[in-house]
Parts: sequence; C-alpha cells; structure tokens
Amino acid sequence: MSLEHPAAAVHARTTTGPAAPEGTGPADPAEAAVAEAAVVEATEAKTAVVEAAVVEAAVVEAAVVEAAVVEAFAVALPVGRWSTDPAVVDAHRLDRSGWIPTGRPLGVAFAREVADVQAVLRVAAARRVPVTVRGAGTGLAGGAAAGGGIVLDVAGMDRIRELSVEDGVAVVEPGVITADLDAAARAVGLSYPPDPASAAISTIGGNIATNAGGLHCAKYGVTRESVLGLDVVLADGEVLRTGRRSVKGVAGYDLTSLFVGSEGTLGVVVAATVRLRPLARDPVTLAGFFDTVGAAVDAVTALGAAGVVPAVAELLDARTVRAVDAATGSHLAAHGEVFLLVQTDGPGAAAEADLAEAVLTARARRVRRSTDPAQAEALFAARRAALPALQRLGRVLIEDIAVPRGALARAAARVTEIGAAHGVDIFTMAHAADGNLHPIIVVDPTEPEIPPRAWAAAEEIFALALDLGGTVTGEHGVGVLKRRWLAAELGPRAHDLQHRLRAVFDPAGILNPGRAL
Amino acid sequence: MSLEHPAAAVHARTTTGPAAPEGTGPADPAEAAVAEAAVVEATEAKTAVVEAAVVEAAVVEAAVVEAAVVEAFAVALPVGRWSTDPAVVDAHRLDRSGWIPTGRPLGVAFAREVADVQAVLRVAAARRVPVTVRGAGTGLAGGAAAGGGIVLDVAGMDRIRELSVEDGVAVVEPGVITADLDAAARAVGLSYPPDPASAAISTIGGNIATNAGGLHCAKYGVTRESVLGLDVVLADGEVLRTGRRSVKGVAGYDLTSLFVGSEGTLGVVVAATVRLRPLARDPVTLAGFFDTVGAAVDAVTALGAAGVVPAVAELLDARTVRAVDAATGSHLAAHGEVFLLVQTDGPGAAAEADLAEAVLTARARRVRRSTDPAQAEALFAARRAALPALQRLGRVLIEDIAVPRGALARAAARVTEIGAAHGVDIFTMAHAADGNLHPIIVVDPTEPEIPPRAWAAAEEIFALALDLGGTVTGEHGVGVLKRRWLAAELGPRAHDLQHRLRAVFDPAGILNPGRAL
Repeated sequence: MSLEHPAAAVHARTTTGPAAPEGTGPADPAEAAVAEAAVVEATEAKTAVVEAAVVEAAVVEAAVVEAAVVEAFAVALPVGRWSTDPAVVDAHRLDRSGWIPTGRPLGVAFAREVADVQAVLRVAAARRVPVTVRGAGTGLAGGAAAGGGIVLDVAGMDRIRELSVEDGVAVVEPGVITADLDAAARAVGLSYPPDPASAAISTIGGNIATNAGGLHCAKYGVTRESVLGLDVVLADGEVLRTGRRSVKGVAGYDLTSLFVGSEGTLGVVVAATVRLRPLARDPVTLAGFFDTVGAAVDAVTALGAAGVVPAVAELLDARTVRAVDAATGSHLAAHGEVFLLVQTDGPGAAAEADLAEAVLTARARRVRRSTDPAQAEALFAARRAALPALQRLGRVLIEDIAVPRGALARAAARVTEIGAAHGVDIFTMAHAADGNLHPIIVVDPTEPEIPPRAWAAAEEIFALALDLGGTVTGEHGVGVLKRRWLAAELGPRAHDLQHRLRAVFDPAGILNPGRAL
Repeated sequence: MSLEHPAAAVHARTTTGPAAPEGTGPADPAEAAVAEAAVVEATEAKTAVVEAAVVEAAVVEAAVVEAAVVEAFAVALPVGRWSTDPAVVDAHRLDRSGWIPTGRPLGVAFAREVADVQAVLRVAAARRVPVTVRGAGTGLAGGAAAGGGIVLDVAGMDRIRELSVEDGVAVVEPGVITADLDAAARAVGLSYPPDPASAAISTIGGNIATNAGGLHCAKYGVTRESVLGLDVVLADGEVLRTGRRSVKGVAGYDLTSLFVGSEGTLGVVVAATVRLRPLARDPVTLAGFFDTVGAAVDAVTALGAAGVVPAVAELLDARTVRAVDAATGSHLAAHGEVFLLVQTDGPGAAAEADLAEAVLTARARRVRRSTDPAQAEALFAARRAALPALQRLGRVLIEDIAVPRGALARAAARVTEIGAAHGVDIFTMAHAADGNLHPIIVVDPTEPEIPPRAWAAAEEIFALALDLGGTVTGEHGVGVLKRRWLAAELGPRAHDLQHRLRAVFDPAGILNPGRAL
C-alpha cells in the first residue's frame, strides 16, 4: 500500500502536470478551464469514494489479520492460557516505570510450561508478531511495557523444581518470587543472596532479565554471579541450554552471562540453575551518622582498607534523612545529616563489626551498633522508610546510576547541585559500597505531566554518570526509558556490535523490540 | 588450482575416452594402437614437464606471497617488534599443553602498545593471515600453540597503568604477570584474588583468555568475577571498549563476560580494568586427613551448611598423598589417606576456623590447625608438592573437569576405576569447594608417544564429567585438545550459535582459528 494520498496525487497531476498536446483539446481557454474543472471535480469525488473503500478494506483486512493472529495463539495454547479480554490485557501490559506506550497488545499468553512458551514463539515467529515477556511487571525502565504485539506472561511458571544442598544449587522456573526462593533455601540452611528492593514481589526471571542488584551485592554480587545455567526458548521456539550445574566451567563462550541482563531480547528464560550460598547467620548492624556524604563515603572506602567486606552499606543523603524524619517522626537528622547503614554477616560478623565500628567512629558524628534483631530492625526501617517518605511528597522518578566508588561523593554532590539548578527536588540514596546511586526526583503530583525541568535534571544526571566513568543504569536496566543514552555510554562500535549479536538470536526482531538496545 | 592430477586426467581420457569417429583414423588397428601409444607417451612427457613447472611456479608464488606478508608485518611495526628468526619463532610458538601443531608460523610480532596490535590485525585482516595471540604461553590446552600464520605476543605490554585505592580497581595491560598485580595491590592494602597455579608466570591477558580459576575461587570467584571492563582490538584493528569502571552496570549486553574465556577468538585484549578486593589478613590454615574422598567431600559440604566460606579447600586423593610422601619424605598418609587443605581468611578467619575445625574433626581421622605462617606454609607445601611429585613419576597429562559439588566424590572414585580399567596411573587433586577435579594421568616418559590407553582413559573422564552434569574444562580452556568434546557438552544448537557469534566479531576467521570452538 502506497503512503501517498490518492486525492492529492490526482490534484497535483491536474494542476501541475504537463500541458495537453496541441490540437487535441477544445480551442477556447475558458471553455477548456470549465471542462477541466468538471473533470477534476468528478475525479475528486470518485477518488474520495475509492479512498474510503481502500481505507475500509485496509481496516477490514487488518481486522481479519488480527483475528487470524489471535486465533493462532488461541489454538496454539491450552485452554485458559490465552486472553484478549481488555481488562486482562490492561492488567498485564504495563510495568512500574510509569511509561505508557501507545497502542494495545492483541492479547496475553499465560505460560505454565516450557511447551507454552515454545508454542507462543513459534506462532509469533511465523507471523512476525512482537512479543513482550513479563514476570511480575515490577521493572522500572519500561522493559515489560507493551504497546502492540502480544504479552507473554511467565509468572505462572513458578515452581522451584529442585533444591540441592549437596550441589549447592536450585533449579527454578522464571516466575518464582525472589524472596520465596531465598526462603526455601533458608529452610535447608542455605540462601539466595541477590535481593533487589522488589524481592518480595519480583520474579527470578525478571531479576535475570535486568541482572538485578540489591542491598547485598557488595558482598554477594549481582544476579549474574548467582546464575550457573539457563534453559532458554529462542525466537524460533527451540530450547537452548546454557551453562551447567557445576560452579566452574569454561567450555565455549559464556552465553549465560550474555542472557543475564538482556531484558528479554535474546530469548525467553524458562528455567534457571542458580547457585545457593552458605546462610550467613548472626548479622551485626551498625548505623553511622555523618556530617557530609563525603565523610560517609570515606568511611566505606576505609572499611575496604581495613579488610571489611560489608554485607550491606546503604547511604541516605541529608535531604532524604530529613524526609524520613518528617514521615516517621524519627530524629535521625539530630544525630547527623547523612545516614550510613552497615551490616556484617557470617561467622566473622562480630570481628568485622569491631573493625567497622572503629572505622565509622573515626569519621562519624555518632555510631550505633546492634546485634539485637529488634534494634537492628529499627535501623533497617529507616532505610526502608526512605522511598515511602519521598512518595508522600509527590510523584517519584527513581533514577539509577553507578559510578566508580571513589566518585560517589562527587556524584552525590553534583546531583544536589543539578536539582538546585533546575528547581527540582532530588533526594539521593545509594548502595555505597558499589557506587550505585538512586537519585529520586520528586515532582508535584498535581501536574498532569512530568515537567520538562525534571527530565532536564535527569538528563544531566545521566551525563554526569558517564562523565565520571560510570553508567546510566546500575541495576534497573535500559528498557525504553534509557535507550537514547545507551549509544552514548557504549560508543557506536559496541552499540552496533550488540545489535548484530541480537540479530543472531532473533533475526526477525520479535523479542521485546524497541527495548534494551 | 584444481585438485585433479593433470597427468592422471590425460591418461584417463586416452584410455577410457570415446572411440575416434569412424573413417577419420588409420585403417589398421595395430598401426592405430602404435600411433596412439606414441601420442600418449608424448603427451605424458609433456604433462610431466608442465606439472613440474606448475609445482615450481606454485612454490615460487607461495614464497613471493610469504615474503610479501612478512614484509607487510615488518613494515607495519616499529623496529625490533617483528621477527622471523627461526629460533625466535620456535621459542614463541608452543604453550605448555605439549601439543605441537604441524607447520610453522611465519614470524612473531612483539606488541608493546595498542597501536602495534592494531597494526598487526590490520595487516592480518587484509591478507587473511591467521593470528595466534600469546601471553606467557603457560596454557594447558593448546590455545596458544601456533602452526601457520603469525604469532602476536603481547607479553611486552606489561604495565600496571593505574592502581586506585579509592575506586578499588586497577587498569592493567595484558602482559602483566598475575602475581605481580596481586603484589602491587597488596602494597596498597588491597588484593587481586584470582590465583591460578601458574600465577607467578602467567599473564592477566592469558587468565582472561581462559577465565582462569585457582585456589581462591571458592570464595573470590574466577577471573570473570574480577574483570569490570576491557579494551579490545577487534579483528579489523578497531578498538572496542566493554564494561566500565564502576562495580555495577547493566547498560547493554555483557560483552566483558563474553570476552572473558573466549581464548583470543573474539579480539585481542589490550587493557583490563579489574576489581581489587580488601586484603584478607591473618589467614588460618587447617589440614584434615580422611579415610576416603567421600568423607573429605562430606566435610566440604558441611562447611557450607555451617556457614563457612573457605578461601581455600584443596583435596589430594590417596594415590597423590602417597606420591607426595615418596617425593618429599613426608608422612601424610600415616595420618589418613586423603588430604584436605582448608584456609579461612579475613576478620572472621578465626571464628570460621573454629567452625571448620569442628566440622573436620567430626569427619576426619586427624585435623591440624595453624595460624603460624611457617606451620601454615608447611601444610600448603604438601599441596604444592603434588604436581612436582607426579612429574617425578613420568610424563603428566593434566586433566581439568568440573562437576556439581555433590558429585565430586563419585567423580573421583570413577576416575580411579577408569585408570584401573585402562591400566593407566591416574592421580586426582581437586579444588573441592568448586567441584573442579584435576585427574593427572602419568605415563612412562620413555614411550615416544602418549599411549592410546592414556587417551582412552582421558576420553572416559570427559564422558564422566558430562554424565554428572559437569564440564570437560573447569578452568584451563578448550584450546585445541578439547575441541572434539565441545559439541557434546554444548549441544548442536548452542555450538552453532557460538560459531555465529564468533563470526560477528571475526568474519574472516583470522583470530586463533581452530581453537576454542
């Protein structure tokens, strides 16, 4: 179908076309003009009719194609695993990014087994239908927000297939809730340490898609460090196995690491073999109250120099501390403007806490230490209260940059300056040992749109991260929202290479198109 | 050039070709036969001359091409960085695998800076010359053993460009000796934990190429876990940057992990940003003497259940213990047949050692504990004496399989049975916490070749690793020696995908062809 408007084309021809050959038309110019006008009018009327018919035919054809596509998915899946109900579609088309794509998906496939995922991808590949894969939809970057195509929901693949104490591994389906896996591991004396803030509601599949981080990454690594192998359904419906069940292995390229963090663009994870770790008992919790972010960051660096590997090192800047005080009635700011929560764990927790206490005491205005679970919980509560405290103040935009650890204080200071320069409220919390900052931009909730000055501040924050040798996303992923920054971070050569790798896995581009790269 | 032999073709035509058309040849059959014989003889003589000339021309042409190629490399590189001296080439064409490829490289390029690597790859790409990249040549799988093409030696790129305590990173060139990096990090109160047995002589570049493991992997991870970013010269001479200087980051696919372990087939690493860790002081060393491998492995599993993460957990089987005793005059076997060396480190080392001692004592015939460096050194000496003790007994084939940890005892028992069945001496040592076994096959050094029964035993060991859900190489790499096992381990789909990924990076196939995949 041509993109040119048929009536416009006719009109153009009649007004600017070549003159009629001599001796073939009426002699009188006025008469000729009248005749021509009649022809034009008749042509235009006819064109309008044709045009309406063409549009109608296109609509009918699209509806027929759509119906055939919908039918194909319905037939390919067992009863009850496919829905086009608008309410169901609406409930499964967005994530927590706040991004609402234009268009609506045709339907949602609810996979409960590997064969369902294969069936969906075979139909999608044959008909070139975009597929947006989702777990719990807790992502913050728009990676699971679907406009057209269909949604493939794998939340129903939620079995822990195996927990092996001997091998120190679990085999899980993608829809398992992260905290549920950890709880199951703890029940047998082990743990699954990766713990994004969403662990109680997000899925392992989603954690793998974004290479999720969390509070315990400093000591236990991000999701990638806990994934040993994957079963993946590729874009053509075939199953690929990557990695292995052993902790070590170097046969072939590390496809497992390539899939982790690929945001559903290389294949659909249908099972993961993850590494479990010894359960770290008897944690000791410390809170340091500092005058400046710089002093708190110095303390984190000094922990490393003292040989301490903290399990948790969470920082709240002065603005955030005051917001927590205002929301909860606490008096944290009275002890010091900047709050640093440190936890040590494992058999050496007490010895590490002794060292940590000395390090903090030398740099903080005040230090509190707790081995009592209730006291420790009260300290953790301050950290957990931060985001809700900000959400009381307005609509929040959660940013996620990471910088080299030594640049953390500079980054936090610049973020505050950027907020002031744009007249935007920005609050910063950070996984301090990893150099991963979450500047939270809070905007007036009565404004219908995010104001341009908030976006301008966000853009400056991303530029800052790159300036400092860091990244525009430490643990939330690129999704849709950070795509335009990706090329700047990767450089054109790496960006192009990544697109070419993607095409090896998904030549037709049906998996989460427009996301991740 | 046709593969058909010209003389043979002529002969075939004269003896089996269609008969001459009637009425065009001599009437007498005998006369005709004589005439034909003369023609054949003349043709054959002429053909032999032509053939000799063709062969000679090909030789001359090859020599001319070779000279032009050699000249191109010589011109592209600064003076003193290219050699065709046979002694120099011989000194740089093999690794420690014992594998000697047929053919000889044309020359060796000695890169000292990034521009040298770019120059070499540009010439190689233009002329389709295979390039074998080497660091120290300590590899055990033939990955740096070169037949034809040229050798690119990056050992001279050996600067530690930067050590940042604040950021906890180092930026190093590929030729830096691994132990030198760790020593430099220790000088500023940090450490670089990956420590293959070859750490004192192998390079960071080689460690990255094979994703080298080592004694401390159980706690600190393999090389991949310490590499944050890479500068890589691609096959066309362009520089690619992967990763970043921050600990965390999820923008784009993880190309860094794809390069680590790719054995020089995707590009040439010219710089690496590696993560440094807090220096673990005051290690405590324990040795357990067990009756069986099974009891020792049970102890390792129980360490995890007790919350202990040992920095070292090295196992020597009974045959190896006896070999060490025979070589060093020690009496380890008197304490127990199987030796398990455990080390805890960090501020919690003593607390962890207390737990570990209890775990070992419940399962071992005898346990020794040492915090005194000299005593600890004596215990480590037994582990380090193992390979030299076996090398006294004959020529060693060092194998390298990894299995799920719970299968370690079964694997070790089966390895012993395989040795007995084939009449081959096999000794096993293992990184026990990782399930990584090194079965060492010792053969009579007076035999000119490795006997077939030794290869047969090795094959059975590889099959065993796959049977148990493990891998044919835990940390040494595929190189040349394990290529034929790779497809079995990966499966055809993954194997094919890996080849297609390789082609994205190196479409002409000039980088370490015939290696890794």
